[in-house]
Amino acid sequence: MDISRPAQRLGEAGQSHLLQFWDQLSPEEQAELVFELDSMDFKEINCFFKHAMEASGQAKQEKVDARMEPVPREVLGSVTRDRESLKYWEEEGLRCISQSKVAVLLLAGGQGTRLGVPYPKGMYDVGLPSHKTLFQIQAERILKLEQLAEQRHGTKCCIPWYIMTSGRTMESSKEFFSKHKYFGLKEDNVIFFQQGMLPAMDYNGKIILEGKGKLAMAPDGNGGLYRSLGTHKIVEDMERRGIAYIHVYCVDNILVKVADPAFIGFCVHKGADCGAKVVEKTNPTEAVGVVCKVDGRYQVVEYSEITLTTAEKRSADGRLMFNAGNVANHFFSLPFLKDVVNTHEPQLQHHVAQKKIPYVDMQGQLIKPDKPNGIKMEKFVFDIFQFAKNFVVYEVLREDEFSPLKNADSQDGKDNPTTARQALMSLHHRWILNAGGHFIDENGTRVPAIPRHGAAGTLSPDGSQNLKDGTDLPIKCEISPLVSYGGEGLEKLVNGREFHAALVIDESGIHEHVKNGL
Amino acid sequence: MDISRPAQRLGEAGQSHLLQFWDQLSPEEQAELVFELDSMDFKEINCFFKHAMEASGQAKQEKVDARMEPVPREVLGSVTRDRESLKYWEEEGLRCISQSKVAVLLLAGGQGTRLGVPYPKGMYDVGLPSHKTLFQIQAERILKLEQLAEQRHGTKCCIPWYIMTSGRTMESSKEFFSKHKYFGLKEDNVIFFQQGMLPAMDYNGKIILEGKGKLAMAPDGNGGLYRSLGTHKIVEDMERRGIAYIHVYCVDNILVKVADPAFIGFCVHKGADCGAKVVEKTNPTEAVGVVCKVDGRYQVVEYSEITLTTAEKRSADGRLMFNAGNVANHFFSLPFLKDVVNTHEPQLQHHVAQKKIPYVDMQGQLIKPDKPNGIKMEKFVFDIFQFAKNFVVYEVLREDEFSPLKNADSQDGKDNPTTARQALMSLHHRWILNAGGHFIDENGTRVPAIPRHGAAGTLSPDGSQNLKDGTDLPIKCEISPLVSYGGEGLEKLVNGREFHAALVIDESGIHEHVKNGL
Repeated sequence: MDISRPAQRLGEAGQSHLLQFWDQLSPEEQAELVFELDSMDFKEINCFFKHAMEASGQAKQEKVDARMEPVPREVLGSVTRDRESLKYWEEEGLRCISQSKVAVLLLAGGQGTRLGVPYPKGMYDVGLPSHKTLFQIQAERILKLEQLAEQRHGTKCCIPWYIMTSGRTMESSKEFFSKHKYFGLKEDNVIFFQQGMLPAMDYNGKIILEGKGKLAMAPDGNGGLYRSLGTHKIVEDMERRGIAYIHVYCVDNILVKVADPAFIGFCVHKGADCGAKVVEKTNPTEAVGVVCKVDGRYQVVEYSEITLTTAEKRSADGRLMFNAGNVANHFFSLPFLKDVVNTHEPQLQHHVAQKKIPYVDMQGQLIKPDKPNGIKMEKFVFDIFQFAKNFVVYEVLREDEFSPLKNADSQDGKDNPTTARQALMSLHHRWILNAGGHFIDENGTRVPAIPRHGAAGTLSPDGSQNLKDGTDLPIKCEISPLVSYGGEGLEKLVNGREFHAALVIDESGIHEHVKNGL
Repeated sequence: MDISRPAQRLGEAGQSHLLQFWDQLSPEEQAELVFELDSMDFKEINCFFKHAMEASGQAKQEKVDARMEPVPREVLGSVTRDRESLKYWEEEGLRCISQSKVAVLLLAGGQGTRLGVPYPKGMYDVGLPSHKTLFQIQAERILKLEQLAEQRHGTKCCIPWYIMTSGRTMESSKEFFSKHKYFGLKEDNVIFFQQGMLPAMDYNGKIILEGKGKLAMAPDGNGGLYRSLGTHKIVEDMERRGIAYIHVYCVDNILVKVADPAFIGFCVHKGADCGAKVVEKTNPTEAVGVVCKVDGRYQVVEYSEITLTTAEKRSADGRLMFNAGNVANHFFSLPFLKDVVNTHEPQLQHHVAQKKIPYVDMQGQLIKPDKPNGIKMEKFVFDIFQFAKNFVVYEVLREDEFSPLKNADSQDGKDNPTTARQALMSLHHRWILNAGGHFIDENGTRVPAIPRHGAAGTLSPDGSQNLKDGTDLPIKCEISPLVSYGGEGLEKLVNGREFHAALVIDESGIHEHVKNGL
């Protein structure tokens, strides 16, 4: 097997150590290694490393706090403070959708590692009565939204769904979709593309080997989106389809309003090229990045960059001054996205994430370090806010729109399958009540609207010694997206009726059956 | 053993079934039963039952929602919206304390049943570095507050501490205090008194037997406070001591600011006879009672009484309209408390709490019912708000002042020893940072102000695929109340200094030592 060419390229890039175990590799391993090396541009990778380290060095010195300004009211839309405009924005958004001008872009590169599963997060079943996966829930919301727009405007339309996977999740995701016939969507309108990978490097810029013949590779962050959009000519595909607006979101939010008409309508109404959906940060020490202005340009300041003094600042109304909590849910106009891909993104440095990266030592022994020994290089999807000429922010309610799936159930009480499942069922319970339906228990008495153990962050009862048994979990209740996208159209089904949990409402009708095991 | 007299009284009250197993009891059991029966007024108990059932029947019919009004701004004080007044209120409160006009009244009747311990909640150690119990933390806050008031005004003063226990917690609580020499307080200034008990009754008003010779007894709710204040002549004791203002709170809140000078100062400044400390309810389905006006009189409407429509109502500023979350933390003027005890309380009906109450059947077999089979009768401490002539509300920050201990760690992620411990350490971490101190990790790098896993209700990170290991629990950090009551006086100790966790600051100095096991 000829190795002179890769050897030379590695030598020029100061990465020759990647071949140190060459003689110990089997022919197959050698072939794989060469194949991997051939696909990589080491000069560019060294550049990334140099700039990323410089940037992170600077970042450490300069205090961003002093230069932070909150989001001005005039660019902010709020579902709680602008209620009279909501209907109008939603109309506007539905109009755009009916004209097939809206696409959704899903960030699905993440694996279920922290969930304890080897497959993509989108394939996870949080244990709803229907046992639908995140992928299916999102697909059906798209399908329903197309129908709503068509009914509203009497024109056939389509919402193309671009799904960015990573090297690790591409195959399994594609198989899953085809196995399930794209959950009713047209195969042509579900477009998969793959984000890039970058090697992990030690602090001297040497690429780390995780095996004698294997480089430690990692996805290049959800901001890798922009580069891969270019690589795979996605923007051109969008232009071909006549797309004007793109909704970008992350796969792990079970409540995500895919292509949310109100959000899109608000952004279009404001003539925005870029917009961020946010939820109010109410506790200064919540671990969430906040959207704000720095030196007059919008960006997300991460919770780790902020001082407590800044985090605790409040406006006259008592709210936190920096309370626009970023939830990885964005709007782009196509021209803006095109500029980003072609012009701006290449100028962006990677962020440095210090990591404990398993590596093989000189003897070829695999070592699992107990403190950070190197870096992964990543870009973030929000790095490009700074290039927006007309940036807007849209504030929604956490309990209605944000419940991310991050951890396994065992890990802690936050952002796990149980909280995700309960958040969705609690929302659907509220839909039923607001549509005039009610739930009754086994004794035929009405279940109170507010269960004893409600959504995450529940306060405790009034301090009376009246012992609570603490078993009132949210009512088991699920409404198929194919029946209702956002609570609409339920009156005719539930108004004035009483139901027993578990209640499932889907295309085939209303089903009440006792299921066990929340 | 003569049983004619109790038998006659029981007969007159329709409770003769309590003697159905008389012949099967040992002489000791007979003696105990007669002793218990002699202490009870069955006619009164039957009255309580009659009125409680009537009241709860009415409550079911009438919708309170339509008659609810939010707390008007003019009676509301807010730590976030009235910052300029805080110093003044605190001064006013300290002045009252320095004049020995302020007493605290602790509701400590609750047992650690749900915590899984057989002793009073106040004796629970949540696992702080110091392993102080809730009782000790509260005692030391009182001690420190006396010192602060004395330093400020150069006069000796005292804050008497009235502790209401229940039959079940009296002895163990008293022993615990004397064993620990009242945690530095004067024995004379710690006054224990016992709340009443009432029998559980079936739906026909028959007292339930939990054993052949044993009545099913339960404390009469934290509102039993007012009756027992009368029974034990506590108001007279307060008058003797020259008390003018009383702060009432519940034992299970680890963050409670006992005799909070700002709260007391605000109430005094407003000339209030009754006040409630609240935290903002931000999620419509939080299981918390809200302070509001009904038919022009203040009361707490419990979450179970409210419809979703009302719970979701919002003001123009986007906040929930009914957002004054009750946390069982109140202010009373002595004249008001005296009126309540002597005049109003006897007119109050008990609330009905339907319960699964173990009972012995006709054969004397103990039965554990699987659905409610009877009621416990309770009053709530806030039942008397309606009698206030000048009621005020004081809104504070949940993360600074409210973290109740309700459940065992295993049960769920809320209101357990871990959340209580972390809430306190997170607060003390913020005190250190605001006083100019910093924490560094084992590599000597500064720990960010906002840890990855912050206070309860933490939002998730920015959706980047940068895997978080999720181990950044709150910094292990505890400051003795004897060093700082509310964060004051720490600059001289920590300003400009760097610390390693676990950090403990107490009377004996600053201690840094790695401890394990959060």
